[in-house]
Amino acid sequence: MEQAEIIVIGDELLIGQVVDTNSGMIARQLNTIGIPVLRTTAVHDDETEITHALTEAFTRVNLVLMTGGLGPTKDDITKTTLCKYFDTRLVEDLAVKEHILQLYHDRPQVLNSLTATQWQVPEACSVLENRVGSAPLMEFSQDGKLLYSMPGVPYEAEVAMNEQIIPRLAMLASENIIIHKTIQVYGIPESALALRIADWEDALPPYMHLAYLPQNRIIRLRLTAQKHTEQALLEAEVNEQISTLMPLIEDYVIATEDKPIEVLVGEYLKSRGETVSSAESCTGGKIAMLLNKHAGSSSFYYGTVVAYDNSVKQKVLGVREETLNSVGAVSEQTVIEMANGVRNLLGTTWSISTSGIAGPDGGTIDKPVGTVWIAVTNGKHTHTECFRFRGSRDQITTHAATAALIMLLKDIKIS
Amino acid sequence: MEQAEIIVIGDELLIGQVVDTNSGMIARQLNTIGIPVLRTTAVHDDETEITHALTEAFTRVNLVLMTGGLGPTKDDITKTTLCKYFDTRLVEDLAVKEHILQLYHDRPQVLNSLTATQWQVPEACSVLENRVGSAPLMEFSQDGKLLYSMPGVPYEAEVAMNEQIIPRLAMLASENIIIHKTIQVYGIPESALALRIADWEDALPPYMHLAYLPQNRIIRLRLTAQKHTEQALLEAEVNEQISTLMPLIEDYVIATEDKPIEVLVGEYLKSRGETVSSAESCTGGKIAMLLNKHAGSSSFYYGTVVAYDNSVKQKVLGVREETLNSVGAVSEQTVIEMANGVRNLLGTTWSISTSGIAGPDGGTIDKPVGTVWIAVTNGKHTHTECFRFRGSRDQITTHAATAALIMLLKDIKIS
Repeated sequence: MEQAEIIVIGDELLIGQVVDTNSGMIARQLNTIGIPVLRTTAVHDDETEITHALTEAFTRVNLVLMTGGLGPTKDDITKTTLCKYFDTRLVEDLAVKEHILQLYHDRPQVLNSLTATQWQVPEACSVLENRVGSAPLMEFSQDGKLLYSMPGVPYEAEVAMNEQIIPRLAMLASENIIIHKTIQVYGIPESALALRIADWEDALPPYMHLAYLPQNRIIRLRLTAQKHTEQALLEAEVNEQISTLMPLIEDYVIATEDKPIEVLVGEYLKSRGETVSSAESCTGGKIAMLLNKHAGSSSFYYGTVVAYDNSVKQKVLGVREETLNSVGAVSEQTVIEMANGVRNLLGTTWSISTSGIAGPDGGTIDKPVGTVWIAVTNGKHTHTECFRFRGSRDQITTHAATAALIMLLKDIKIS
Repeated sequence: MEQAEIIVIGDELLIGQVVDTNSGMIARQLNTIGIPVLRTTAVHDDETEITHALTEAFTRVNLVLMTGGLGPTKDDITKTTLCKYFDTRLVEDLAVKEHILQLYHDRPQVLNSLTATQWQVPEACSVLENRVGSAPLMEFSQDGKLLYSMPGVPYEAEVAMNEQIIPRLAMLASENIIIHKTIQVYGIPESALALRIADWEDALPPYMHLAYLPQNRIIRLRLTAQKHTEQALLEAEVNEQISTLMPLIEDYVIATEDKPIEVLVGEYLKSRGETVSSAESCTGGKIAMLLNKHAGSSSFYYGTVVAYDNSVKQKVLGVREETLNSVGAVSEQTVIEMANGVRNLLGTTWSISTSGIAGPDGGTIDKPVGTVWIAVTNGKHTHTECFRFRGSRDQITTHAATAALIMLLKDIKIS
């Protein structure tokens, strides 16, 4: 399999009511086994549209992965469309029926006449197990073309890829080795970064390619190498390129792995047996969410006080009324008192605090929308910074949460 | 303009490193002016791929909207590709130059030789103002075909759509009226719902269409009507259909507007001058994030204690050690004490609390992964429920936060 295409099906995607995360998940997984994705297409739950997209995709590639349109309701028509496309008919699959009856044995209300259509499957396909749902997972193989049709529910699609489709495709994958290496950079604009490393980038061999992936003010520099060679040889070549790159950007590098900042923070804290808490005003729980997002976070993350109202800053965190009255809630002194307050209250090694103006209202000339004070402390050293972020309310809070975690990561490293 | 297509450009989308939210945003905006989206295509930063996707799209529709590939770095090639496609060349645009110099006057480090390529634009296009960034916003009009090329940065693309593209397209839009009406339903499986309303759905006129949009265990039923008629007439028809539908599903309806639950909660609280706080264990700040996500939330949302560690439940929220020792942290009594604790601490009208096992580890036979206790109280009445959610860690916390807000919404309505 040299390349694949993805077709995502659903009216809801094309009116923008739901964001498609399946195509990204599928692309990531295919990449791990060396199958690049040429194109992703989103089409309506419409027989003609699905058929056209599929026909066109098969003129370009021999592998197509499809999500959506497999539910029991009238608007889901992928299965009947595939029957026409592959000139086959629906038949009852006893193994699928048994699986669905088993899956819903404790929820009989789900098992009604509509669900019964779920064990009708196209005769020409192989049905793979959908361990976590009732929609069939189908593999069609015809004239050297391979099609997988999986549910649109993101969790079911992910399990289908992980447990069924990737193991099958891995056996068919090409011998081209693909290596991605990502360096995370913060505190330099994309264009200045590009200028700084232009000579290095120009000197890359033709089978290596650099991409700039800016997100939340972090730029991920992703170097991709793709070559018919041995894994170890290509890895050595990539490492040599990276070691030439590093001296050019070392002031801005925050990580040499493609892991979220909160994961890196968690790894450092766990290895040191340290803990963290947060006191959040403008970030409103976003730092808490990031810190407890991943399994195992309870060993280093204790808790958070979201002090949205000033009364909470005073009553719970012990911020002094005098501070709020003299310099205001968005100030260096307030975030210092918030960080100390939450650290003492929860008894953690580290604490982070934020206070700012997320907008769209509430800005002043001195403190425009986007002004955010952040403090990080471990009791001995307290580090504060003031930022002026641009963007929407959501962007400002995301930027602030990211900046706070990067401050913490740096402080942990040097402490 | 009868229909449009969207092309999103970027290698990062096709390896799944970044989720495309632009196409959904563009589709939503086009829908508001009656332009449906036929298809969305994601392609690489590759001249051949972009050209093919564009050529193909223009065989199906006369309007294409494109995002991405406009940055100053070497991997961004949309502008030169469009020059070839429209047989034109890059020229310096003085107005764009002036705008960029103005935009970055306080950040000279951004203004370097690479940024200067940003004011090179295709001679054949009209350049529209990109108020918030340096990439050009381009309109090409040729032989009845219309193309907009906008930046891939989501915030810049959104401002471009809002301020430039939608006002222009609105003048060209068709006379077909499109009305969407959404009912939000909770507590019934999709297939059981479909069966319950099958007769009603079958009797819909051909120019009306029902879609089931399940997300986080809420099912949004979206009725779309599209007809060449007058707005008021079509609205009356839609309202009549809805009033026939409602008695069939009234036990499950949580909202008759397409607004997020947290927005509805906020509207109710503001209109009553009431406030809310939360005490979160397994949801880890997700309820806080939802409650303060939207502008103006500081008038009804006071704060949150994320009590991830049991010590926080005791020290800050006053959960009794006896309770934790006898029935454990994931129990009805614990969430009652958490809800009362945070409500007393922060002095709010309402409070919500959650405690559960988000997984993937930590489940037992009595309390498997997905078990979540939730309490809602206003001091007079306390309402608790125990759920068993399925899915990943992220899904379980999202389901729990959603369930908690729905419990609060219902309790506010009946109080």
